[in-house]
Amino acid sequence: MSTPHPAADPAAGAAVKAADRAHVFHSWSAQGLIDPLAVAGAEGSWFWDYDGNRYLDFSSQLVNTNIGHQHPKVVAAIQEQAARLCTIAPGFAVDVRSEAARLIAERTPGDLDKIFFTNGGAEAVENAVRMARLHTGRPKVLSAYRSYHGATAAAINLTGDPRRWPSDTASAGVVHFWAPFLYRSPFHADSERQECERALQHLEDTIAFEGPATIAAIVLETIPGTAGIMVPPPGYLPGVREICDRYGIVFVLDEVMAGFGRTGRWFAADHFDVVPDLLTFAKGVNSGYVPLGGVAISAEIAATFDERPYPGGLTYSGHPLACASAVATINAMAEEGIVENAARIGEQVLGPGLRELAGRHPSVGEVRGLGAFWAVELVRDRATREPLVPYAAAGEAMTAFTAACKKNGLWPFVNMNRTHVVPPCTITEEEAKQGLAALDEALTVADAYTA
Amino acid sequence: MSTPHPAADPAAGAAVKAADRAHVFHSWSAQGLIDPLAVAGAEGSWFWDYDGNRYLDFSSQLVNTNIGHQHPKVVAAIQEQAARLCTIAPGFAVDVRSEAARLIAERTPGDLDKIFFTNGGAEAVENAVRMARLHTGRPKVLSAYRSYHGATAAAINLTGDPRRWPSDTASAGVVHFWAPFLYRSPFHADSERQECERALQHLEDTIAFEGPATIAAIVLETIPGTAGIMVPPPGYLPGVREICDRYGIVFVLDEVMAGFGRTGRWFAADHFDVVPDLLTFAKGVNSGYVPLGGVAISAEIAATFDERPYPGGLTYSGHPLACASAVATINAMAEEGIVENAARIGEQVLGPGLRELAGRHPSVGEVRGLGAFWAVELVRDRATREPLVPYAAAGEAMTAFTAACKKNGLWPFVNMNRTHVVPPCTITEEEAKQGLAALDEALTVADAYTA
Repeated sequence: MSTPHPAADPAAGAAVKAADRAHVFHSWSAQGLIDPLAVAGAEGSWFWDYDGNRYLDFSSQLVNTNIGHQHPKVVAAIQEQAARLCTIAPGFAVDVRSEAARLIAERTPGDLDKIFFTNGGAEAVENAVRMARLHTGRPKVLSAYRSYHGATAAAINLTGDPRRWPSDTASAGVVHFWAPFLYRSPFHADSERQECERALQHLEDTIAFEGPATIAAIVLETIPGTAGIMVPPPGYLPGVREICDRYGIVFVLDEVMAGFGRTGRWFAADHFDVVPDLLTFAKGVNSGYVPLGGVAISAEIAATFDERPYPGGLTYSGHPLACASAVATINAMAEEGIVENAARIGEQVLGPGLRELAGRHPSVGEVRGLGAFWAVELVRDRATREPLVPYAAAGEAMTAFTAACKKNGLWPFVNMNRTHVVPPCTITEEEAKQGLAALDEALTVADAYTA
Repeated sequence: MSTPHPAADPAAGAAVKAADRAHVFHSWSAQGLIDPLAVAGAEGSWFWDYDGNRYLDFSSQLVNTNIGHQHPKVVAAIQEQAARLCTIAPGFAVDVRSEAARLIAERTPGDLDKIFFTNGGAEAVENAVRMARLHTGRPKVLSAYRSYHGATAAAINLTGDPRRWPSDTASAGVVHFWAPFLYRSPFHADSERQECERALQHLEDTIAFEGPATIAAIVLETIPGTAGIMVPPPGYLPGVREICDRYGIVFVLDEVMAGFGRTGRWFAADHFDVVPDLLTFAKGVNSGYVPLGGVAISAEIAATFDERPYPGGLTYSGHPLACASAVATINAMAEEGIVENAARIGEQVLGPGLRELAGRHPSVGEVRGLGAFWAVELVRDRATREPLVPYAAAGEAMTAFTAACKKNGLWPFVNMNRTHVVPPCTITEEEAKQGLAALDEALTVADAYTA
């Protein structure tokens, strides 16, 4: 594969890695067992190390570089804003903060027109939960198994994957329920329609037994991300909306990963014609060029805090440099048709390509997704759907698959028994096909672990 | 006062404010009752609006611009890093991330040599608490009344000021105790030494009755910030250290506000010759030019996560742009003697100047602090020490005082019955004296509200 990258400099890479091991404590890792790759640079859909290896980024890092690496318009906007005004307290009015809020509000569904800015997704979820509890005066929050909402205390308690377990507070007021996932149906359904009906019935039943008047919010990823990119059946989210309306429950859609073009629309909610009361975002809003997240707030919930102070905040809320990068990102995405590109690549290249791989590789149990947001579910046995590695466990099969991807110049996103195909929304057809070819080879390695 | 600022443009200011009111939801505010000042620019110790008004920033925004506004070396570093690499996932090794960690570890006390990066202070505290709980296997955390630790769920529960109340979870495993504060002694002490002894006895007693084996951590601001800049008596923090050692409790010092030069030392802990097990930072580490915070971790606690994965993380941990700005900030502070400047201004200008004001203004009950970190406690009556406005309440007296400061071109930091004098650590002697003169006039307004 071809991509720009500088000459190799292994000595420099070794120095960077040694410095890292001396002082950097890494997320989600056993510090003594990791061997972090030293990255020398990145551009578009690619990044490279100091040894002359370049990688096609099918992970968008942590599914955040929707606009690719080092987009020149966003880089220029950061440089210009740095020269003008890097930081100012949240209490002031600032041009780029207002403009970022306007551009976001213009794109969010319905009347979600007030924007509370945070530094990232976890804080966005924290504040959405606070708003919902204060708006309703109720204590409990419902969220789904197979979900991720962030790693601060409230956000990790909402999370429905094993990352919650070590930080779990049974007293956090969170109740988990099951959302639709036909391939591993919690409801023994055999059609999308049946899965949808049963999932809504399960939610209704859970609410009835928890007590509707005790529930402040239902928090869902519009399309769950790291947990497996399970696109909900068409009627599900409108059904949840109806249930929330009936019981006066605040409906929170978490679009930290699915928002800002990832699914081929500005927001994943647009696919389902549903308007939540609160929508959380981060990542794609500025591709993570500067830390930024936030909550888009409905008129009704915003009005709750018109005369009563909203009791939450942070030093860098509406950070000028972050907001300037969001303005440039959103404008570039609109000017260059990047959301439309994600939709087209999904429909014409990734969807057909992944389905074709599924037909040939016995390790592929299912592919599902849309836009630049796809999951490939790897199994030991297609008939039983037994995962290639057990839930919440690593395993040789996935390690070998991952290594094969990297050997082929592809940087994959891997979680449990799945690989997600989540490249930048700017990826070209040619790059997507190159990535699929590398994936094809790596799946042959996975096939060897099938029953 | 003189400072650079562009020509006034009230129409532009009105447009910025209107755009803000349309879409920006502000921290800690009743959205319908605020009237945010539109800021046009900033430099050094100053910022200005669109109406030709300029303000000497005695607040450092939210006590974060330790290096002043728009420091040219930091601006240049952000611009250069933006051109090189804006973002990369936390799992990689990156030159600027390693270098920021090294420069921080070099300055933190003792063996706090591993750095976990976050986006800000609240997340730093969240992760420190998680580390302490997992390291000890114990559930409870002790923190002090009169404190602030952030607004995410765990951080706001630790907080000991009224901002906790609307988000309080009685089940969060936090127990609040009283720290020393001689001016309003919780222990009826009449000397620093007695306050210290009684405060340590109170902490010992609280631990004994909570059960030492249930307590994971004691979390303290080294010098409490927004809660009132109460410099602890010399023996207090070493005493807490000894208690923690005796009971196997993790000692967390929160230096989000007090760290990175604010007190005239790199860390406030340096004044007390005390080494915590975990130290949280944010704000001054890069003056907030890019959102950044973190935890400095002792060798013993880091080792806990050598083979056992650390179960916490965030997309922007060790963000390259943020780390590059921290490298430039720390280097500029060292090269330009900015920490020493804060110490000198505190000893030679702010301390003597504030004490002189206290002598002349009946509304000043006490001044206390060091470096660029001072509190002026305003009272209705010096004898009874009755605060100028009640605890947790606003009041006409403070509103009038604040307005008088702004009218005099001084932007104050105000909390309850106090004004804090917390200018950039780069402030010049002349600027500090200008600010004290403006404060002098404003205190005359406060004097009118004394009994």
